Amino acid sequence: MTEFFNVLPPSEALAMLLQRLEATIVSDLVPTIDALGRVTLQDVASTEDLPAFPRSTMDGYSVRSADTFGASESIPAYLEIVGEVPMGRPSELQLSVGQVAGAYTGGMLANGADAVSMVEHTQTVDESTIEVLRPVASGENVVQVGEDIRVGDTVIRKGRNVRPEDIGGLLALGITEVEVARRPRVAIVSTGDELVPPNSSPGPGQVRDINTYTISALVEQSGGVPLPIAMVSDDYEAQRAAAARGLSEGDVLVFSAGSSVSSRDLTAAVFADLGEPGVLAHGIAHKPGKPTLIAILNGKPAFGLPGNPVSAMVVFDMVVRPTVYALLGCTLPPEPRTVKARLQRDIPSVAGREDHVQVRLITENGLIQADPVFGKSNLIYTVVRADGSVTVPLDKGGLYAGEEVDVRVY
Amino acid sequence: MTEFFNVLPPSEALAMLLQRLEATIVSDLVPTIDALGRVTLQDVASTEDLPAFPRSTMDGYSVRSADTFGASESIPAYLEIVGEVPMGRPSELQLSVGQVAGAYTGGMLANGADAVSMVEHTQTVDESTIEVLRPVASGENVVQVGEDIRVGDTVIRKGRNVRPEDIGGLLALGITEVEVARRPRVAIVSTGDELVPPNSSPGPGQVRDINTYTISALVEQSGGVPLPIAMVSDDYEAQRAAAARGLSEGDVLVFSAGSSVSSRDLTAAVFADLGEPGVLAHGIAHKPGKPTLIAILNGKPAFGLPGNPVSAMVVFDMVVRPTVYALLGCTLPPEPRTVKARLQRDIPSVAGREDHVQVRLITENGLIQADPVFGKSNLIYTVVRADGSVTVPLDKGGLYAGEEVDVRVY
Repeated sequence: MTEFFNVLPPSEALAMLLQRLEATIVSDLVPTIDALGRVTLQDVASTEDLPAFPRSTMDGYSVRSADTFGASESIPAYLEIVGEVPMGRPSELQLSVGQVAGAYTGGMLANGADAVSMVEHTQTVDESTIEVLRPVASGENVVQVGEDIRVGDTVIRKGRNVRPEDIGGLLALGITEVEVARRPRVAIVSTGDELVPPNSSPGPGQVRDINTYTISALVEQSGGVPLPIAMVSDDYEAQRAAAARGLSEGDVLVFSAGSSVSSRDLTAAVFADLGEPGVLAHGIAHKPGKPTLIAILNGKPAFGLPGNPVSAMVVFDMVVRPTVYALLGCTLPPEPRTVKARLQRDIPSVAGREDHVQVRLITENGLIQADPVFGKSNLIYTVVRADGSVTVPLDKGGLYAGEEVDVRVY
Repeated sequence: MTEFFNVLPPSEALAMLLQRLEATIVSDLVPTIDALGRVTLQDVASTEDLPAFPRSTMDGYSVRSADTFGASESIPAYLEIVGEVPMGRPSELQLSVGQVAGAYTGGMLANGADAVSMVEHTQTVDESTIEVLRPVASGENVVQVGEDIRVGDTVIRKGRNVRPEDIGGLLALGITEVEVARRPRVAIVSTGDELVPPNSSPGPGQVRDINTYTISALVEQSGGVPLPIAMVSDDYEAQRAAAARGLSEGDVLVFSAGSSVSSRDLTAAVFADLGEPGVLAHGIAHKPGKPTLIAILNGKPAFGLPGNPVSAMVVFDMVVRPTVYALLGCTLPPEPRTVKARLQRDIPSVAGREDHVQVRLITENGLIQADPVFGKSNLIYTVVRADGSVTVPLDKGGLYAGEEVDVRVY
């Protein structure tokens, strides 16, 4: 076991990992209707013009615009109705000079027409005659062929997180399947002699395993597929077997590794034994989360998160979530949701260390205030009672009451 | 058919609907591990103290704090090691004066100990003796019984959108099931003689139905279950049958109803025929979206959205999404994600009308600029090409280039 102690700032540790990560984005062809939230892997070009025919944007009459020139309330243009073009049907009407045909919003224009007069700007004289009260320009109230999108235009770019409107855009062109990144499977191993399953009653000295489930939920939120592997004791062989299984079944391996020195050493030893190049960062300069392991084992990212559930969640967001996004092919990972708030109390910190502090948000008279939750940061209910967190940057000794802060909302 | 024309501002129309909505939140008991994103229906109180035993927060030694008083580097306290309390095991050791026992992070203290000396503040003399180099106060480096949460304390409040940390908090207490709101089923009917399914080739005058799928995706995003019912022609009997089926199978009915006058009238007639009190708002003062129908039919909310896909999506966000949230029992529906950006060009509008304008976001030198996408707002690719939208308020005649605006990000 080669142990080296290499404590890095979280962003550096992450950058080192992502640089060394081989491109292991796997493609998945899914029905467009199921693609919500998936990430595209290809630029897609249109093979059709949309619309495929000139469409009216109003209810009214297909006209030859020249026939309406100079029309006004006092001197309307009298035009002959020769029929209508029903919705969803090809136009079988050909307009001659002085003729119009009924048109519907979204429907086709009559042949020979180049504009639509809104029904509000016409008056019915008898069943075959209307007065047009205003002139229309050529192309008015019409969507032209290809005005929405043309053959060869980009429908959707690579790296796009598919939104409802993208599904609409693809289907409008008949593109019913789309190539997206397979959701990375994140294997989760929870370790510790003190752990019992959540549905059992812990004896003295025991606690229920929750990391398997908080990490599963975080993986799901990030767009990955959680793959709970096992809850194992602090035993080298048991942990090695679980890690090997996780690496073979998953694309990413996450250990919640216990915070005690012996437990940390055990995880480091297991990782060192399982592939090259092994552990990249042994510890990150962050509170909470110092005892974090970041490794690449035979091309797959592996993390040893602290055993404390709160620390594990914070470190997940810093290093595992961005890794899942990278494997999803996100070129623009979603920014965390933040709100501006005014700090109600001082937050002390230490320069040279990035701190995350839990806050409760209180809205009074439309003003958002952030109230630090000063319970011990390693208690799960300190987080459960909070609505978000404030980051004290590496170079600041603290934040003051009254300061405006960005609160990252959970 | 009683048709009345009652055009309301969107917020008023929505308020009227939500006021009249009977409480139809249905309860669903789900495993806590599957509750991510669901909304709780009950305050839950703890039936246990957490932690259930005093836990060490450090690796080191359980001590009687009095034994360390006055200890320093120059005059350390010499104490006798009588063993250790292993992780996950009850303490079988009783400390007498001058005795300590090994302690692990997260582990139990030895009986008689009231604090933990960090290993960094001790020195090993021999296998049964340590020097303690600093005093510890009673309770130092210990989480006391019930310090995280006590019997009777609130675990999670009613109306909480369950987060990963909430799952952790519940499971830590052995609460493996939680009562949440059933996801509202939203029945979706797409209407129009011009529609063909997305996997077919439209003939002249025809277009592919996309509203069924964009609305399904929006429902999914909102936490509801989309229930596509049918794509039907502009035929009264066919629409009535589809609407009746949607109302019987779903908790909410959404028609994308066509924008032409005749199509609108048809939907209004179908709604008027299907239950009391019927149509509440016939049109909303908003562009796009004027021809929107809002109804309650036998206690279930029903919406006629415009047939134009872009308008349908905008109106969905204004009236359907908040209704789904209400049926989910959200007391604090998630705020839409917004970013501040500087407008690159003027946006003209008309006072007395709320406008939504699509924008593309461009980040240059760390500054976010919003560039209006001026394609016709009724074209799907105007939205596909956009990253968000800017709202021009009811009382403003437009927005000016250089103004800071809130962009609602899609």
